[in-house]
Amino acid sequence: MTAATTPAPDGDIGVTGLATMGANLARNLARHDCRVVVHNRTRARTDALVAAYGDEGAFVPTGSVAEFVAALARPRKVVVMVQAGAPTDAVVEEVALLLEAGDVLVDGGNARYTDTIRRTRALAERGVHFVGCGISGGEEGALLGPSIMPGGSDEAYAIVGPLLESIAAVVDGTPCCAHVGTDGAGHFVKMVHNGIEYADMQLIAEAYDLLRARLGLSPAEIGEVFAGWNAGDLESYLVEITAEVLRHVDAATGRPFVDVVLDEAEQKGTGRWTVHSALDLGVPVSGIAEAVFARALSGHTAQREAARAVLPGPAEDPAPVADRDAFVEAVRRALYASKVVAYAQGFDQIAAGAREHGWDIDLGALATIWRGGCIIRARFLDRIRQAYADEPDLTTLLTHGYFRDAVADCLEGWRTVVVEAARAGIPAPGFATALAYYDGLRAERLPAALVQGLRDLFGAHTYRRVDREGVFHTVWSEDRREVQAG
Amino acid sequence: MTAATTPAPDGDIGVTGLATMGANLARNLARHDCRVVVHNRTRARTDALVAAYGDEGAFVPTGSVAEFVAALARPRKVVVMVQAGAPTDAVVEEVALLLEAGDVLVDGGNARYTDTIRRTRALAERGVHFVGCGISGGEEGALLGPSIMPGGSDEAYAIVGPLLESIAAVVDGTPCCAHVGTDGAGHFVKMVHNGIEYADMQLIAEAYDLLRARLGLSPAEIGEVFAGWNAGDLESYLVEITAEVLRHVDAATGRPFVDVVLDEAEQKGTGRWTVHSALDLGVPVSGIAEAVFARALSGHTAQREAARAVLPGPAEDPAPVADRDAFVEAVRRALYASKVVAYAQGFDQIAAGAREHGWDIDLGALATIWRGGCIIRARFLDRIRQAYADEPDLTTLLTHGYFRDAVADCLEGWRTVVVEAARAGIPAPGFATALAYYDGLRAERLPAALVQGLRDLFGAHTYRRVDREGVFHTVWSEDRREVQAG
Repeated sequence: MTAATTPAPDGDIGVTGLATMGANLARNLARHDCRVVVHNRTRARTDALVAAYGDEGAFVPTGSVAEFVAALARPRKVVVMVQAGAPTDAVVEEVALLLEAGDVLVDGGNARYTDTIRRTRALAERGVHFVGCGISGGEEGALLGPSIMPGGSDEAYAIVGPLLESIAAVVDGTPCCAHVGTDGAGHFVKMVHNGIEYADMQLIAEAYDLLRARLGLSPAEIGEVFAGWNAGDLESYLVEITAEVLRHVDAATGRPFVDVVLDEAEQKGTGRWTVHSALDLGVPVSGIAEAVFARALSGHTAQREAARAVLPGPAEDPAPVADRDAFVEAVRRALYASKVVAYAQGFDQIAAGAREHGWDIDLGALATIWRGGCIIRARFLDRIRQAYADEPDLTTLLTHGYFRDAVADCLEGWRTVVVEAARAGIPAPGFATALAYYDGLRAERLPAALVQGLRDLFGAHTYRRVDREGVFHTVWSEDRREVQAG
Repeated sequence: MTAATTPAPDGDIGVTGLATMGANLARNLARHDCRVVVHNRTRARTDALVAAYGDEGAFVPTGSVAEFVAALARPRKVVVMVQAGAPTDAVVEEVALLLEAGDVLVDGGNARYTDTIRRTRALAERGVHFVGCGISGGEEGALLGPSIMPGGSDEAYAIVGPLLESIAAVVDGTPCCAHVGTDGAGHFVKMVHNGIEYADMQLIAEAYDLLRARLGLSPAEIGEVFAGWNAGDLESYLVEITAEVLRHVDAATGRPFVDVVLDEAEQKGTGRWTVHSALDLGVPVSGIAEAVFARALSGHTAQREAARAVLPGPAEDPAPVADRDAFVEAVRRALYASKVVAYAQGFDQIAAGAREHGWDIDLGALATIWRGGCIIRARFLDRIRQAYADEPDLTTLLTHGYFRDAVADCLEGWRTVVVEAARAGIPAPGFATALAYYDGLRAERLPAALVQGLRDLFGAHTYRRVDREGVFHTVWSEDRREVQAG
């Protein structure tokens, strides 16, 4: 036992859970002149943090939850940084028991937003504010400035918002942190952020695959292509690190790193959650879904082995690409346009989620705080911010003047790439679904009318008409007269 | 009060819930020499059924649940035919209270399989057998012979199976009813059946749309094309009724029926459930997902209007199709091959669900009972039955000799159609995703390796290598040495 002293209640904020994300967030707070009370289930980690980084600012190490809470000035501000799910429930429960009305408990983990809504309600009964806070940027972001998406009451945000804004990434003088909405809003938008990240990475992967298969470029050469793209409209963290990964050479073999990595992509769940939610909201996030499915497919080893052995490709090898530069540019356009579609779908989902849950989410503000700190940070997001500033009620990003024109410029290249992929037998589900979505949205008529007709025939599911109000059914099994239904 | 008599306990089976599905199922049972005890919340419907169809067999109308249960011989067999969800819970609860150990309660509604698992457990505590029973075929199927997918214990199936088999559709002398597995297995496979139905209808709709847009055929002419296809490998109920719907002329306007139907497709939920489940099981059912999303997109009226007004199509009108017959044949091939993919994905999901829930599902038997009675009934399903008979451990339908060859024959036409759709700006998400899945499955290497590399860089998510066992991380932010992880 090192101390029998009761700590003075003068900590600005507490962080419990000091794995890398929690430790880095605590350091980030300390570097921004916060007096940070730190706690971890095993004391050793707390001490190690203070031993290694104590000189970065004011840390107050504590050994028990009681000591941890006692060391905080009121209203107390506690950030929980533990694994989502049961571990979060356990820690929230334990800490909340010691908090008082007016205190604020922040969950900075990757919680499912429905859990956040539940926890908000439970803590509200005791007068404790709960803030479900999406934090993106990985370990480095947590330390140097993440993108922060807090959800909670206005009262709660007034208490913790300034601290969170002080440690966020900054772009053009604006912190990448804003009050997203009440209860689950923060974790909801973080979930969709991750879903968009899935789509973005899948599109990048398809671009790489096409350049490699059709042009025979080496990974390093494709890395150069991506580095070049990063100087233009596609400038983004993911494009930047794609160049880095593609140029990396495996030390053990001397081969391109990407060639020694097993081609089975894993996932931790937020992409899947995003699609779950989108299905329930009736929002077609086909880009995110194809990305989740592409990862799933990559892990079906036995099926892939069986398929590789027997399934034929195109009858003839595709002719070599005549104009390599033109093809590279077409792939860039396909990537850009498909990315616009993926973001349009994701922002639709956020708008639909906001309507469903009564959140007042400012989509432009959201684009603003995604410009820096997070994994999908990109020049592009400033355009989205601008689009919502121009037209707050924009029904889809695709119809805003800037994106409409940008996509129009990409259109022929995009079509060419989808065509080339289909002809050459290279899977490009992300590019293909994005194009089909674009063409579906602008279609004068969709064959959905036939689907409704079939549903009416086999299941009496009824249909509406183009020329008058009402719900109708055709009595298919008799004389095919039309009757008013419902 | 019509009677003070206590009914004799000699009913073979009881049906409660006499809306069209329930009434038709009761009539089907009565026509098959069952003494059918019938009950409905409102007595009038019970009396109307007996008044109209009493001459078809032996009906025992009852007015209360107590009377209903008392009229059944032991072990009692009760079929509940009410709306899924809360109404089913209410009726199951009410009836089960009056049942005794050894009785069997069948839920013939479209229950969510997780609800069925829950109900099975609850009733097992009282010794009552619960059978969650998928029934497909719509109102007509219920009367004339549906496809029946019962899930429950062997003991329960021994009691109700013979009755259910007696009223099912029959193909080649085999009833379209088989014991699927325990508890939720029946409703699970019914759910996936409906998901496949979504995919199948979407593919049909795309085929129609392409024939119309690229060849300028009228709906009636395309109806003829479908009727022709129905004489070949595509022979199926859905193709047959597509011909019927496309040939139908709206009496009020004299226009093709499909042109007066509003092009917004609705959905009742089973497609969405199927994708939910597939996401959790890690099975890429992209064909079903695209079908669900296509319906969702069709209903986004405001976005579609905005998009139609401003989004450009292809720069040049596509050249007319030179060889119309060849194009029709290419579309047929695209439809066939995409359909094989959709079924392969659906059967994968069933296999994965069976592993997850410990169900011993015979995929060949399932294909057998889907050959008749249900909405997706098709000649095709006999090929699937045969495939699983040939290779019970088949890892994917696509690699079975028959389907491999059939799809190989379709391959060039399929690619041509995906190419034409992309070039001409016609949305064909179903054809495109099916082709991308096929090419993904057979790919030597997938760009998933790049995705894993990116995930390792930004999130330390680690990767595996192609050349040795273990889990690795590259220390990207330092000297890029590779370390063993986990």
